[in-house]
Amino acid sequence: RRRREVLFFPSQVTCTEALLQAPGGAGPPGAPAGCPCSLPHGESSLSRLLCALLAARTSLELCLFAFSSPQLGRAVQLLHQRGVRVRVVTDCDYMALNGSQIGLLRKAGIQVRHDQDLGYMHHKFAIVDRKVLITGSLNWTTQAIQNNRENVLILEDEEYVRLFLEEFERIWEEFNPT
Amino acid sequence: RRRREVLFFPSQVTCTEALLQAPGGAGPPGAPAGCPCSLPHGESSLSRLLCALLAARTSLELCLFAFSSPQLGRAVQLLHQRGVRVRVVTDCDYMALNGSQIGLLRKAGIQVRHDQDLGYMHHKFAIVDRKVLITGSLNWTTQAIQNNRENVLILEDEEYVRLFLEEFERIWEEFNPT
Ligand SMILES: [Zn+2]
Ligand SMILES: [Zn+2]
Repeated sequence: RRRREVLFFPSQVTCTEALLQAPGGAGPPGAPAGCPCSLPHGESSLSRLLCALLAARTSLELCLFAFSSPQLGRAVQLLHQRGVRVRVVTDCDYMALNGSQIGLLRKAGIQVRHDQDLGYMHHKFAIVDRKVLITGSLNWTTQAIQNNRENVLILEDEEYVRLFLEEFERIWEEFNPT
Repeated sequence: RRRREVLFFPSQVTCTEALLQAPGGAGPPGAPAGCPCSLPHGESSLSRLLCALLAARTSLELCLFAFSSPQLGRAVQLLHQRGVRVRVVTDCDYMALNGSQIGLLRKAGIQVRHDQDLGYMHHKFAIVDRKVLITGSLNWTTQAIQNNRENVLILEDEEYVRLFLEEFERIWEEFNPT
């Protein structure tokens, strides 16, 4: 059965160490053996979003207006370390703000491109392995994850993936600095 | 076949008078007889969004962070005049800004509720006749429609509609002022 999920936010604040420290892949959420922290260790909208991303094995396209969540940043870096081809498109206005993950991603060697025109690059979508589309209202910030009313759809759907990949490639070329 | 559409923005600026003046319903876009304006009269992402909304016959739920587009405001007022039950949930921070349509909708007798807490009500979705979900990154502002990179999904899908209606009703009750 094809993956179809809707996540609503704000997300309960849960410990996501088990997901982010797993060496191999995205196991089901749960406490790493002996995690001493006092947060709940169950599922949350954030942990489900992390799981959907950490399922990537070959490619990850990110098209994000704002990206400052440390957990999501760690997940993207993990994927890059595992050899997943990660490409990021973002908005230059937000990129300059405090706490943006974009500088860290670049330092880690991940390809990032940003716009430089008047309109905002306001998308908030990800494409996993050219197979699953993750899209919604959620900017990838802790403020939004923990405080806002937001939605994220996770769709395993060829047609939507194709249309959003085409949009990604259009923007990727348009933001080509060379 | 069930409706499935993806709209990308920025939208070409087109004349939407034919849609907004049609007495009966949402005809296909095209110039009203003798429209003298100099804009193109073909389809655009905005005209397709208007069409999807103007198809409403019984109910329209709107859950919108920002709503200042005059054309979308006229469409919602038209539906209200035609007897469609319109309910609007919005964010109080944006509501106070210049050009918000919310005051006009209230004056027209449309039910509007807004939040009053710290997090944003950041959704941008609409539900037409409890049958079609319209959701994405797009705030309903002319700035976003004409300048930003944005996406809107139009999904005729029972499961998604049910989940988003439940979210709407949760927020509707939470924002009940009484
Ligand atoms: Zn823990
Ligand atoms: Zn015209």
